[in-house]
Amino acid sequence: MSVALIHYPVLDKYGGTIASAITNLDLHDIARSAKTYGVHTFYVVTPLTDQQDLARKITSHWIEGFGGKYNPDRKEALELIKIMESVDLVVGDIRKRRKKKPKVVVTSAREIGENIDYNGLKSLIWHGDPYLLLFGTAWGLAEELMSEADYFLKPIYGADKYNHLSVRSASAVILDRLLARDE
Amino acid sequence: MSVALIHYPVLDKYGGTIASAITNLDLHDIARSAKTYGVHTFYVVTPLTDQQDLARKITSHWIEGFGGKYNPDRKEALELIKIMESVDLVVGDIRKRRKKKPKVVVTSAREIGENIDYNGLKSLIWHGDPYLLLFGTAWGLAEELMSEADYFLKPIYGADKYNHLSVRSASAVILDRLLARDE
Repeated sequence: MSVALIHYPVLDKYGGTIASAITNLDLHDIARSAKTYGVHTFYVVTPLTDQQDLARKITSHWIEGFGGKYNPDRKEALELIKIMESVDLVVGDIRKRRKKKPKVVVTSAREIGENIDYNGLKSLIWHGDPYLLLFGTAWGLAEELMSEADYFLKPIYGADKYNHLSVRSASAVILDRLLARDE
Repeated sequence: MSVALIHYPVLDKYGGTIASAITNLDLHDIARSAKTYGVHTFYVVTPLTDQQDLARKITSHWIEGFGGKYNPDRKEALELIKIMESVDLVVGDIRKRRKKKPKVVVTSAREIGENIDYNGLKSLIWHGDPYLLLFGTAWGLAEELMSEADYFLKPIYGADKYNHLSVRSASAVILDRLLARDE
């Protein structure tokens, strides 16, 4: 399985479509979760070249720079990152590697009609086909990504109705529910 | 249940005991996870008064300041935060409220002798007694906190041996495993 953190197209607070900024800790935290749960590639998606440069700067510090020697565990995690312009290019990249188009699974904190639950997706993943999980930054994935997806993953519920997890926390919980080895 | 994010005593990279700095996103992410999973109080523990001031500044911006109006969900989460000097004072605070000393559960990415697993702790929690879960910053909780704990929670394993989750991710996964309502 691969995951993608989407910076465009995502929603702002008012429902408009924007490109969000790269956040240093998103890259670190999600790379560490991806490595922990055996994710193949962590795609960072943004069409903005200055933001791609920023993402490259963050990762290269920890991979080639001083950071890699100081903290080899961090290096191993950040090596999973691949920076790409769009979800279409990510899908193409996986298709090229796996010789098969991946199924695209979108995540959201909102209920969106028919969705697949964690056990359902878990058993699909175990069949071995390629899957790509999309995580939105800002106020979530834009409608155009939702409508092209193969599956909507059920929102995470904790104790009650409040479910405003950060993308760093939500992605960790989702990977844990789908990929943790059973105790 | 309550949780505490410990900034002292914690370990540095070389195993020495230090006081770590408050990280803005730790407070936001863990408060949001705590609110999502129905945690009663999120204690932020540091003996350093300048760091306590910093934590107060972060939370008051979102509770009393502009942030509270701009993002009421964030306000609800950050209202769970209580800043305290030490774990002993946290235990005292819970004891005062619940009329019973809480059981202290420590978390770690390392195996430490006998530990309790997630299902085991989950069923204990459901009996209704007060529990306090400690999360370490930097390189984890210092030995003196480990040795005084009632339970060691089993480390999180993902797919393999690598388990270097951020404290933001690890705390979300742990709360999900212990407190999520079953699907």
